[in-house]
Amino acid sequence: MSTVRVPDVVPSPTQDSERLRTAVQGWGTDEKAIIWVLGHRNASQRKKIRETYQELYKESLIDRLQSELSGDFGKAVILWTLDPPERDAKLANDFLKKKGPNKLQVIVEIACATSPQHLLAVRQSYCSLFNRSLEEDIVSKVPLLPLRKLLVGLVSSYRYDGEVVDGEVAELEAAKLHDAVERKQLDHDDVVHILSTRNLFQLRATFQFYKQKYGKSIDQDIKSCGTGDLESILQIVVWCIDRPEKHFAEVVRASVLGLGTDEDSLTRAIITRAEIDLMKIRGEYHDAYATSLDNAVIDDTSGDYKDFLLTLLGARL
Amino acid sequence: MSTVRVPDVVPSPTQDSERLRTAVQGWGTDEKAIIWVLGHRNASQRKKIRETYQELYKESLIDRLQSELSGDFGKAVILWTLDPPERDAKLANDFLKKKGPNKLQVIVEIACATSPQHLLAVRQSYCSLFNRSLEEDIVSKVPLLPLRKLLVGLVSSYRYDGEVVDGEVAELEAAKLHDAVERKQLDHDDVVHILSTRNLFQLRATFQFYKQKYGKSIDQDIKSCGTGDLESILQIVVWCIDRPEKHFAEVVRASVLGLGTDEDSLTRAIITRAEIDLMKIRGEYHDAYATSLDNAVIDDTSGDYKDFLLTLLGARL
Repeated sequence: MSTVRVPDVVPSPTQDSERLRTAVQGWGTDEKAIIWVLGHRNASQRKKIRETYQELYKESLIDRLQSELSGDFGKAVILWTLDPPERDAKLANDFLKKKGPNKLQVIVEIACATSPQHLLAVRQSYCSLFNRSLEEDIVSKVPLLPLRKLLVGLVSSYRYDGEVVDGEVAELEAAKLHDAVERKQLDHDDVVHILSTRNLFQLRATFQFYKQKYGKSIDQDIKSCGTGDLESILQIVVWCIDRPEKHFAEVVRASVLGLGTDEDSLTRAIITRAEIDLMKIRGEYHDAYATSLDNAVIDDTSGDYKDFLLTLLGARL
Repeated sequence: MSTVRVPDVVPSPTQDSERLRTAVQGWGTDEKAIIWVLGHRNASQRKKIRETYQELYKESLIDRLQSELSGDFGKAVILWTLDPPERDAKLANDFLKKKGPNKLQVIVEIACATSPQHLLAVRQSYCSLFNRSLEEDIVSKVPLLPLRKLLVGLVSSYRYDGEVVDGEVAELEAAKLHDAVERKQLDHDDVVHILSTRNLFQLRATFQFYKQKYGKSIDQDIKSCGTGDLESILQIVVWCIDRPEKHFAEVVRASVLGLGTDEDSLTRAIITRAEIDLMKIRGEYHDAYATSLDNAVIDDTSGDYKDFLLTLLGARL
C-alpha cells in the first residue's frame, strides 16, 4: 500500500507546473513548494506534470530540477520525479558502475520485487537510455560467472503474473533447490531456471514446502553455504520474492545503523517502494527492530531531505 | 519486404467483415472470398477486421473460421488471421508439445528472427493464453539441459534494437565463441550470454570477424562439433541471427523435398515471414536451389491451400 498522501482535490497539472515554475525561478529555490507539490502526487500525476511543464515552458522539469537542486535532497527529488521504469533503469546503470558487493542488490530488487510488466518497461527504458541491453551490461560488469548467470536469468524473466500454484511442482522444485544447497551448487542451472521462470506465488509455495520438508527455510540454508557474494545475493533473491518488505526493512536498517548514513540506499528504498509496499515495510521495520522507520529517518537525516522522505512516508508536515 | 498485395483502395473493415460473413454463412463456405479478403490485408488491417467482425456479429471471426474451415487450408487461414504475437505464442506452444528434434526450431525463429518488441509481445501473449511463461514450458519440456539453457536464454532476450557495433567486442567475443567450439563446450555460459544479450548487428559483426580470423564460418565450425540436437539448433540460431532468409529458404526446401510434404512447416515459413522478408526468402531460395519457391508451392500443394499460399507469395490469381 502506498504511503503517499495525495490530496482529495488535486490541482490541475497546469497549476502544479506553475507552482513548480515559481519555485525554481529567480533567486534561490523554494524547496518547500517542490516537496509540497511533487511529494503529494502519484506516478501518473507526476507524469502529467512533467508533460505539462515541458509544454508550457519548453524545458524538461527533470533538467531544471537537476540544475536547481543538489545533494541528497536533489537526488531524491529527481529519482521521484522520473518515470518509474526510467528511474529504475538509471538506478541499475548507476549501481552497476559502483564497486563492492552491495551494487547488485538493486538489480535483484528490480527483477524480483516488482511486477513482470514493470521489469519489461525497465529493460525497454534501459535500451533507450544506454543503447544496449541491461543483460549486456550485467554480463560485462559482473566478473563472477555464477552471479552473472543468476542475474542475467532474473532480469530476463517475464513471469506469469497470476496466482497459479501447482503443489507437485512446488514439491519437486523444493527438492531440486535442496539438492543444490546440499551440494553447494548454488549456481546450478536448475536453481537459475526455477527462480527466474516461475511465478511468484508458485515460488512462495515452493519455499514454504522447502521449510516444511527440510526443517529450515531456504534462505537460512543458503546462508550456511558460505559468506560469498553469491550466497548473499541469493538470500536477497529469496526475500525479494517471498517477502520484499523484509528485504527493504533491512536495507533501511543497514543504511542508518552505525556511524554515518548510506543516503543512496535509504533514498532508494523509500522512493522505489513508496507506491508499492512502504506501509508494509514500516510495519516490518517496527516488528523487527522495535523502533519506527520514521524515527530512523528523523534521527539520520536533516533539512529538506528529511522533510521530503517524511512526506513520502505519509507524515503531515 | 512483404509479399502481400494490399489493394490501392482498401475496403473498410465493415465491408470486409460483411464479405467474410457472407462467405461463412449458409450452405458451404466461399473459400475464394476468404482468400480474396484476408490474403490481401496486412496485420493491422486484419486486426481491424477481427474487431469489426466481433462487434457486428457478436462472434469471434477466428472461432467462426475454425468451425468452417479444415485441413491445411483452415490451419493456414487461422494462423494468418490471428494477431502475430498470439499466433507465435500458439505456434511455440504447439511445437513444444511435439516430438522430434524439429520441434524447437520455431522457438529459435521467434527468439532470433523477429524484433525484440515482437518477442516481448509473444511472451506476454503466451502468459495470457496458457497461464504460465514460455520459459517455464521450455524448462519443463526440453529434457536436454544444454539445449534448455540456450533456449531459455534466447527467448528471454530483449536485445537493443539499434545498429551499435563495437569492433573490440566483436573480436573478443569471436574468440570466446571459437574457444567454446574448439573445446566442444557449445553450452558454455559465455556462448549463451553472447548469443542472447547482444544486438543483432553486433552479433553479425562478431560472426564476420570469426570467419575472417578463423577461416571457417561459425556455423560450419558448429556443424563439425557433432550431429546432436544442440549443434543443429545452434546452427539455426546463427542463421536466424545472421541471415534469416537462408534459414527459412531451407525450411521451405525441407518441407517439399522427398515424398510427401511437411505442410505445417511450409505454412509456418510462409505465414510468419510474409510480412517480414518473404521477398528475400524467395531470392535466397532461387539462388540456393536454382528453382523458384513459387513452383515448389505449386508442385507440392493443391486447392484452396495452394491458392492461399500463392496469394501470400504475391501471385495475382
